Amino acid sequence: MSFRAPVPEYEFLLNHIVGFGQVAATEKFAEASGDLTSAILNEAGKLCDEVMAPLQRAGDMQPAELVSGVLRSSPGYAEGWAAIAEGGWIGMSAPEAHGGMGLPMALTSCVNEMMSGACLSLQLAPLMSQGQIEALAHHASDALKDLYLPKLISGEWAGTMNLTEAQAGSDVGALASKAEPNGDGTFAISGQKIFISWGDNDFCSNICHLVLARLPDGVPGTKGISLFLVPKFLPDENGDAGVANALKVVSLEHKMGLHGSPTCVMQYDGATGWLVGHEHGGMAAMFTMMNNARLGVGGQGIGAGEGAYQQALDYALERKQGRSESGTIVDHADVRRMLMTMKADLFAARAIMLSCAVSIDMQAATGEADWAARAAFLTPIAKSFGTDTGISVADTGVQVHGGMGFIEETGAAQFLRDVRVTAIYEGTNGIQAMDLVARKMMDGGDMANRLMDEIEEQAERARTTHPNMAESVWQACESLREATDWLVAQDAMNDRFAGAVPYLRAFARVLGGHFHLTAAMADLGGPREKLARFYITRLLPEHAGLLAHAQAGAAGAYALTLEELTG
Amino acid sequence: MSFRAPVPEYEFLLNHIVGFGQVAATEKFAEASGDLTSAILNEAGKLCDEVMAPLQRAGDMQPAELVSGVLRSSPGYAEGWAAIAEGGWIGMSAPEAHGGMGLPMALTSCVNEMMSGACLSLQLAPLMSQGQIEALAHHASDALKDLYLPKLISGEWAGTMNLTEAQAGSDVGALASKAEPNGDGTFAISGQKIFISWGDNDFCSNICHLVLARLPDGVPGTKGISLFLVPKFLPDENGDAGVANALKVVSLEHKMGLHGSPTCVMQYDGATGWLVGHEHGGMAAMFTMMNNARLGVGGQGIGAGEGAYQQALDYALERKQGRSESGTIVDHADVRRMLMTMKADLFAARAIMLSCAVSIDMQAATGEADWAARAAFLTPIAKSFGTDTGISVADTGVQVHGGMGFIEETGAAQFLRDVRVTAIYEGTNGIQAMDLVARKMMDGGDMANRLMDEIEEQAERARTTHPNMAESVWQACESLREATDWLVAQDAMNDRFAGAVPYLRAFARVLGGHFHLTAAMADLGGPREKLARFYITRLLPEHAGLLAHAQAGAAGAYALTLEELTG
Repeated sequence: MSFRAPVPEYEFLLNHIVGFGQVAATEKFAEASGDLTSAILNEAGKLCDEVMAPLQRAGDMQPAELVSGVLRSSPGYAEGWAAIAEGGWIGMSAPEAHGGMGLPMALTSCVNEMMSGACLSLQLAPLMSQGQIEALAHHASDALKDLYLPKLISGEWAGTMNLTEAQAGSDVGALASKAEPNGDGTFAISGQKIFISWGDNDFCSNICHLVLARLPDGVPGTKGISLFLVPKFLPDENGDAGVANALKVVSLEHKMGLHGSPTCVMQYDGATGWLVGHEHGGMAAMFTMMNNARLGVGGQGIGAGEGAYQQALDYALERKQGRSESGTIVDHADVRRMLMTMKADLFAARAIMLSCAVSIDMQAATGEADWAARAAFLTPIAKSFGTDTGISVADTGVQVHGGMGFIEETGAAQFLRDVRVTAIYEGTNGIQAMDLVARKMMDGGDMANRLMDEIEEQAERARTTHPNMAESVWQACESLREATDWLVAQDAMNDRFAGAVPYLRAFARVLGGHFHLTAAMADLGGPREKLARFYITRLLPEHAGLLAHAQAGAAGAYALTLEELTG
Repeated sequence: MSFRAPVPEYEFLLNHIVGFGQVAATEKFAEASGDLTSAILNEAGKLCDEVMAPLQRAGDMQPAELVSGVLRSSPGYAEGWAAIAEGGWIGMSAPEAHGGMGLPMALTSCVNEMMSGACLSLQLAPLMSQGQIEALAHHASDALKDLYLPKLISGEWAGTMNLTEAQAGSDVGALASKAEPNGDGTFAISGQKIFISWGDNDFCSNICHLVLARLPDGVPGTKGISLFLVPKFLPDENGDAGVANALKVVSLEHKMGLHGSPTCVMQYDGATGWLVGHEHGGMAAMFTMMNNARLGVGGQGIGAGEGAYQQALDYALERKQGRSESGTIVDHADVRRMLMTMKADLFAARAIMLSCAVSIDMQAATGEADWAARAAFLTPIAKSFGTDTGISVADTGVQVHGGMGFIEETGAAQFLRDVRVTAIYEGTNGIQAMDLVARKMMDGGDMANRLMDEIEEQAERARTTHPNMAESVWQACESLREATDWLVAQDAMNDRFAGAVPYLRAFARVLGGHFHLTAAMADLGGPREKLARFYITRLLPEHAGLLAHAQAGAAGAYALTLEELTG
C-alpha cells in the first residue's frame, strides 16, 4: 500500500468542525464552494498519491548533493516540482492579480499537509516559495511584485528565506550580515547564512532569496534589521534570469533526515539586493512570511504523521503474528491502542491547524482584529502541536512495526527522521510556547479566555447528547482557565516561560477535546464519535499533569547550580 | 567535552536509595564493600571515558560491513572489545569458578549502563555475551560450561542469542528452525534467524550462538522449543576453535541507528549444536538469558540518555545566544526545564534499574521467593521506563541543540537514532507492559501491592521533613493502587492489555517519585532534594492522565472497524 491523501477527513473537518462555511460565505472567498473545494482536494490528492509519494524514498536514499558547487537534487524531484507547479499548487492562496488562485489558506493548508505526507522533503520547496510570495505581496514595491510574483507563483523561480547565521539562531537580532546602498536603489549584501532550506535547486531558472541584513545605520538588535530580495541570477531587461549574482552555496548539511531537501550554507559577497518593506522594518516583513510558514510547518508535522499512520496501519493489517481472529497484529490490544492514539491525535492537530487557517482567512476577508488575534494565538499552538504530534505519531509508527521499524527499508524510520526537524525550524517549539505565554498574552489573557468561552459554550450544548464527554471537556477547560489566570498574573516572564511548553500542550489537548466533541455531535453513533470518546477518555486527561507543570514557576527549574547540573 | 561516567550518581544510589548495603551484607557478595565498589566503578569509568567514548562516532560513520561474507567491524571496535575483556567487565557477575568475578548485578548494571553511555553499539556485544554466560551457567551441562564459560568470560569468544525468525517476532512460538539428533549427542540445526545482534565479529576467535529450534517431536508453539549452543567454529580436541560449522551470515541490516553493531541474518544449514537445558525446555532457558538482557537493555536506554544529557548540557553551557547573565542558552527557562527534566527522569529510571538489580542479587544470595517476585515484577518496568527515558532524553537533547541537533556532526541525533531500538528489542515495550499486567499479576496484584506498601510507608516517614512532597507521592500511590485493583479485577485479559503501557508508565512514575523522595530525605537542602522537588511537582503529576487511560478498557480501543481505521 502507498500513501492515500485523506481527502474525506479534510472535507469533514472543513464542513463540520472548523467553520469553513463562514469563509466560503465571504465575498473574498465566494468561489470556494463545496464543489470546488472537493474538486481541488481530490485533484491535489491525485498528485500526492501518484507523483509525490513515489519520490519519498529516493530523496532519502539519494540526497541532494553539491557537485563542484552545483546542486544536484534527488532523482525525480525536478519532475515532482514541475507537477506541483503545473497544478497551480504553489500559488493556491497567492493574489489572482499575479497569477495565483486566491483561494483560502484553509484549503492551501489541506493541500500542503497532504503533500507533506506524500514527500516532506520536496514539499518544503513550494512551502518556502509560498512564504516568499506572501511576504512580497504584503511588503514589496509594485515593481518587485510585478517582476517576481508571477514567476514564483508559476514555479519558474523558487523562493527561500535567509534568517539564521551561525551566531544568530533563535536570537535573530544578533545577525551580522550587512547591506550597503549601491547608490542606484539597490544594495550590496554580504554575510553568511546557515540552515537555508532549498537554498538552491537544479529545476528552477532562478532562486530568490529573502535575506535579513543590517544597513549601515541599523541599530543593534532586531530593530536595525532590513529585508532584501537577492536573486541567484539578476533579472535582465526582459525580466528573465540574467547574469549570476555574487552569492553561492558553500556547503550542504549532513542531516538526521529530510535528505531530499538540501540545507545550505549561503555566502553573499556584495550580492545585489532590493529592499522589501521599510528600512529597518525587516522583522515585520519577515514575520509575515514566518507566520505563514509556522502554520505550514505545523501542517508538515501532521502530514508526515498521516503518512506514518497509514504505513503503520498497513503493516499491522498485513503482519501475521499470534493466534488472533485475523492472524495479524492489528487485533492486538496494544497495537489498537497505538493506532487509535495516532488517529485521534492527528484529528486534533488537524482541527487546530484548520481552525487557525480559517481565522487567517476570516481576517483576510473581513479585516477584523478579532480574527487576527485568534489567528495569532492559534499559530504557535498549531505549529507546536502539529509538529509534536507528527513526531509522536511517527515514533509510534516505528513501534507498531516492531523490529522492522528500525530497518530503513520499511520507511517507518524515515518518517521519524524527516519530521523531527519540524519541532525545530521556523522557531523551535520552545520559542512558540514562549510566544504564546508572552506576546500572545499581552492582552491579559483576553484571546485565551475567548477561546475557552467557545469551548465551554460548545460543551454546554453537547451535554444533552454526550453528558460525560461534555463534562470532561468542560472540566478540562476550567483547569486550563485557572492555569491561564495564574500565568497572566506572573509579572516575571521567566515564571511563565518555565511552564510555557507544558501550558501550550495542555491548551492543545483541551482544544483537541473541543474539536473531538464537536465531531461526536456531528457523527452520532458513527466512527468519529467513537474516536472522540477514545480521545476524551484516554488522551485528554494528560492536561492535568501538564497544567501542574505549567504553574510551577521558574525558581524550581533554576534550583540547581550549573555545577550541580553537571555533577 | 566528552563523556564522563556518572560514578558519583551510582554511588549515591547504591548507598542511599536502593539498599545495596543489604547485598554487601550477604555472604555471597561479602566482598562487595564500599571501597571495592568505588574502585570498580572508577576503573570502569576510566575505560568508558577514555577508550569507549571515542569510538561512538566511528561506529556511526563507518558501520560494520559484510565483505565477501566476512564481517568487518567499525574502526577501533576490536581494540575497544579487547579493553573491555581485559578489564574483566564481561564476566563481572559470572561465576568465579569459571573465571568470572562473581560480583552483584547491581554493580554490573552500573558498568553496563556507563558503557552504553560511552558507546552503545559496542556495549551491546559484551551484553550479549553476558546473557549467554547466564543461560549456560544455569542450564548447560558441566562439560559445556567447562569448555565455553572461561572463553566467553575472558572475551576470547563472544556469545549471541538467536530467537527471531521472519515469521516469528514477538510470537516466538511460531518459529520454524529445526534440530535433528545426529545420534552422537549433538544435533543438526537448520533454519534462518533474523535480527541477530553482533551475529559475527572480526575480533573474537569464535562466536557462540544460542539458537532456539524445534526437535522432531517438539509440539507446535513455545512448548516444543529447545535451546542449542551452536558455535561458528567447532571446538577441537584442545577446546580451541577448529573447523567451520555449517552456518553463515547472510546479510546485515541497514538500520536507523546503532550502525556500529552488525545486525545479522543468520543461516544454519545442518550446523552442529549442543542441547542446553532439557529437550523442549528452550523457553525456560531462554528466559534466563532474556531477563538478564531485559534489565541490561533498560540500562542501555539510561546510559544513552546520560550521554545525550551530558552532550546537551555541554552545548547549552557553550552556546552563546540572547542577553542572559552568562550569555549562553543554559540561562533560558525553557532550556533549564529541559535539562532538569532529563536529569530528574534519568535519576528515576536509574533508581528503578538498580532496585531491580538489588532484588536479583538478593534472590541469588538468599534464594527467597519474595526477592525473585520483586525482581520479576520490576524487570519489565526497568526495561520499558529505562528505554523510554533514554529515548525521550535523547529526543530532548536534540531539541536543546536547536538546529544543530538535526545536523549529524554534533552527535545529538545519533544518540536518538541509536537508542530508539532499545524500546523494541528484547521484547517490545508493549510486550513488557503486557507481561506486567498479566504474568506478573497472576498473584492477584500481591507483589504490586507490596511495592506500594513500601512506597507509602516511606512517604509516611517523609512527612516530617517533606510534608508536601510526601503527600504527593502518597496520593499518587493511592491512585496507582486503585488502578491496580481495577486491572486485577479484569478477567478479560484484553481489558488489561489495552491499558498496559500507560499503567506501566504510571507505575514507573510513582516509583520514581518514591526514589526521589528518598533522595530528598538523604540530601536535606542539597541538590538531590531540589531535583526531587522538580520531579514530584512537575513530572509525577503525569500519573493521573496515564491511570485514566489504564482503566479505560479494551472496548473503546476496538471501537473502530478496520475499515474505519483506514478511512
